[in-house]
Amino acid sequence: MLDKLRQQVLEANLDLVKSGLVLSTFGNVSGIDRAAGLVAIKPSGVRYDSMTPDDIVLTDLEGKVVFGKLNPSSDLGTHLQLYQAFGSIGGVVHSHSEFATTWAQAARPIPAFGTTHADYFHGPVPVTRALTDGEIGGDYVGNTGVVIVEAFGNKDPLEVPAVLVAGHGPFTWGRDAADAVHNAVTLEYVARMALNTLALRPDAAGVSQALLDRHYFRKHGAGATYGQKS
Amino acid sequence: MLDKLRQQVLEANLDLVKSGLVLSTFGNVSGIDRAAGLVAIKPSGVRYDSMTPDDIVLTDLEGKVVFGKLNPSSDLGTHLQLYQAFGSIGGVVHSHSEFATTWAQAARPIPAFGTTHADYFHGPVPVTRALTDGEIGGDYVGNTGVVIVEAFGNKDPLEVPAVLVAGHGPFTWGRDAADAVHNAVTLEYVARMALNTLALRPDAAGVSQALLDRHYFRKHGAGATYGQKS
Amino acid sequence: MLDKLRQQVLEANLDLVKSGLVLSTFGNVSGIDRAAGLVAIKPSGVRYDSMTPDDIVLTDLEGKVVFGKLNPSSDLGTHLQLYQAFGSIGGVVHSHSEFATTWAQAARPIPAFGTTHADYFHGPVPVTRALTDGEIGGDYVGNTGVVIVEAFGNKDPLEVPAVLVAGHGPFTWGRDAADAVHNAVTLEYVARMALNTLALRPDAAGVSQALLDRHYFRKHGAGATYGQKS
Amino acid sequence: MLDKLRQQVLEANLDLVKSGLVLSTFGNVSGIDRAAGLVAIKPSGVRYDSMTPDDIVLTDLEGKVVFGKLNPSSDLGTHLQLYQAFGSIGGVVHSHSEFATTWAQAARPIPAFGTTHADYFHGPVPVTRALTDGEIGGDYVGNTGVVIVEAFGNKDPLEVPAVLVAGHGPFTWGRDAADAVHNAVTLEYVARMALNTLALRPDAAGVSQALLDRHYFRKHGAGATYGQKS
Repeated sequence: MLDKLRQQVLEANLDLVKSGLVLSTFGNVSGIDRAAGLVAIKPSGVRYDSMTPDDIVLTDLEGKVVFGKLNPSSDLGTHLQLYQAFGSIGGVVHSHSEFATTWAQAARPIPAFGTTHADYFHGPVPVTRALTDGEIGGDYVGNTGVVIVEAFGNKDPLEVPAVLVAGHGPFTWGRDAADAVHNAVTLEYVARMALNTLALRPDAAGVSQALLDRHYFRKHGAGATYGQKS
Repeated sequence: MLDKLRQQVLEANLDLVKSGLVLSTFGNVSGIDRAAGLVAIKPSGVRYDSMTPDDIVLTDLEGKVVFGKLNPSSDLGTHLQLYQAFGSIGGVVHSHSEFATTWAQAARPIPAFGTTHADYFHGPVPVTRALTDGEIGGDYVGNTGVVIVEAFGNKDPLEVPAVLVAGHGPFTWGRDAADAVHNAVTLEYVARMALNTLALRPDAAGVSQALLDRHYFRKHGAGATYGQKS
Repeated sequence: MLDKLRQQVLEANLDLVKSGLVLSTFGNVSGIDRAAGLVAIKPSGVRYDSMTPDDIVLTDLEGKVVFGKLNPSSDLGTHLQLYQAFGSIGGVVHSHSEFATTWAQAARPIPAFGTTHADYFHGPVPVTRALTDGEIGGDYVGNTGVVIVEAFGNKDPLEVPAVLVAGHGPFTWGRDAADAVHNAVTLEYVARMALNTLALRPDAAGVSQALLDRHYFRKHGAGATYGQKS
Repeated sequence: MLDKLRQQVLEANLDLVKSGLVLSTFGNVSGIDRAAGLVAIKPSGVRYDSMTPDDIVLTDLEGKVVFGKLNPSSDLGTHLQLYQAFGSIGGVVHSHSEFATTWAQAARPIPAFGTTHADYFHGPVPVTRALTDGEIGGDYVGNTGVVIVEAFGNKDPLEVPAVLVAGHGPFTWGRDAADAVHNAVTLEYVARMALNTLALRPDAAGVSQALLDRHYFRKHGAGATYGQKS
């Protein structure tokens, strides 16, 4: 059932580990089949080196398991909120990657300090507000998705495909699971450089809107000129 | 004699090295068989690449060697103090891992700045007071255990399975030797992120008690929901 | 056509990746045949692991492709400006290497804090001014080359074979493509140490002119004494 | 001629590279045969991967080559000064290892912030004064040795087997070449932790004399208790 999606989600989970962003089992990737209304996600707390496509769990958008014998990732509820609110995304990644998590712990958005950032994120990477005690005591995982969506307001989630959950860590997304992993890797790199940029210049202001636009739109959208004609 | 324990302790020592926490021979892992009243520990100053289960030394809780031809780790006395005072622990790790040691050198407890911390440590990782000259000149290694126990007071040592010895480095523990190593690895990661969190936000206050509880208890205790039903 | 140059440029691109300076496809190396007036450069957005010499694009100094089926690197225009203005250079590297990019994002020149720097760069590594909105909206890539050349004024580009483009990242150059890569690697190392030197001593002033000269000229120029007689 | 010494010096040079302390060819190790009055040292600017024992150069204590066809390391003169002034040492290492060099560039001694330091260095690692323009213009390499010796005064060089040359980088030494490499590795680790200790606690004062003595003398001297009886 949805063999190709499960295979893609497995590979994206393994790529996330290879990229060095995952400590222990602190990471999960999912992908969605919009037509089927089904989400494929990593099982909870399973070792990566023995994972097979059949371990990838399929659920509907309410989180009901429709395929697989294992429990889905304990972060499933957040992924589902994002798929429901952000209709254009096809994959979601959560990790505790070191520097993105550091910014999340400091509860600071990551400013667009350079073109590396601008090539992937069309503006600062936002940080959520802290969850209230009530939100934590209730549907905590779902509410994590709620504050992420709240932090985006009317912004296009594919223009800034990343967020920092305050006191927790990053979520990224993309057109599919592989794209979401690629954005997670870039986010971590951008987060490392931004921290040290502030060490060198505490009042750093970030690139101009013109430079942000130029770099973002040469890689994204109808006018993109980067890479090869396909 | 206690072949399985010695094998486990050997593997835990090798895992500690693989995890990158050990410079030269600066690290040691032990495990205890509570029924037998015996502790298995790494020998002192022996290279890891040639170590076999028979090199692992067995001692009683007073430190008398009952198996093995090599000297036990010079830190044995601290391990013994911890086993005596903390009846629930089954393994102990000492390392000079870079960032945990850095916090120990700065003599600052590591605040719970995020959920990575909260998943493993139910509150700040405490730091001991400095040993007095008298304690250093006397049974220094045993007294290191004394100040660790003192720093915990009535706290449950398994709820915060780590401590920083001021001016020295971290000790971690767990249900067994492998669990203690896992906690050592997480402590190091948490220590790295906490240092940089302070660089980004010098007045960072840490997560709320509600978030700390939520994350800690979803992985630990009777109500844990993380992972697979075993 | 110019087989040897294309082979050298391919190898230099692969060496840049092996050196760890490249995230994803954020890096490109070119080389020039001055007699032929042709530049060999990496294609845009192609994976390194499948690249062959035939993928390396040849263009004239106006950027017209004379060999190859792929689009040249999107940074070609900057490389061309450098070849036109700096007649003594034979290879150019652009990367987003972490610490050099951090200095570029902070828009600070890298002072000559030690002999590692002095062995390669005869003075601070300069930073360009930010491009104006007009320059960004116009021939952005070419104008990046214009502000680099402007930052050098009358200085000999081979005496300080590196620059930081503000808000963007480093360009380095050298006698040929391999030499430019070697300078990129050293620049990154120097950038890491310089950042931490400032952390330890915010008012660090850099080495004396005498030490700068001594180290630079023992490796470079007619009086060089380093290495073996060839 | 002195085959064993040349073999040891070759291996020590290769170990230095394996330890990650060497960028490009920025590193050299030597060893001395006191009875023969001969020093074995790495050749200048030769790639490590093709080096053989016959490439190791032998010189007398005035630097005259008595074996080998290659030029000795350009830092030979400093090594010779150290062998002449410090009669108890048998090996010398020079590197530009990242964090020790950073302290050298900041011209700050490395305080003894913890027991990792105390296990190897019985007190702060000193930094030399800057060389005068006259010293740089004259016998620069020899004068580098002169300011190192000056920085030690009457201290026993084996009690603190390391120094930072201001604006340049570290030299370490030991009983033989391998021991000097081991000290170089530990120095780098200690330098990393010390930098971050200051980030966490700018007024950190270092360990007590009692703790410094306890750790140093349990590994060194007549009363050492660490390791196995040999």
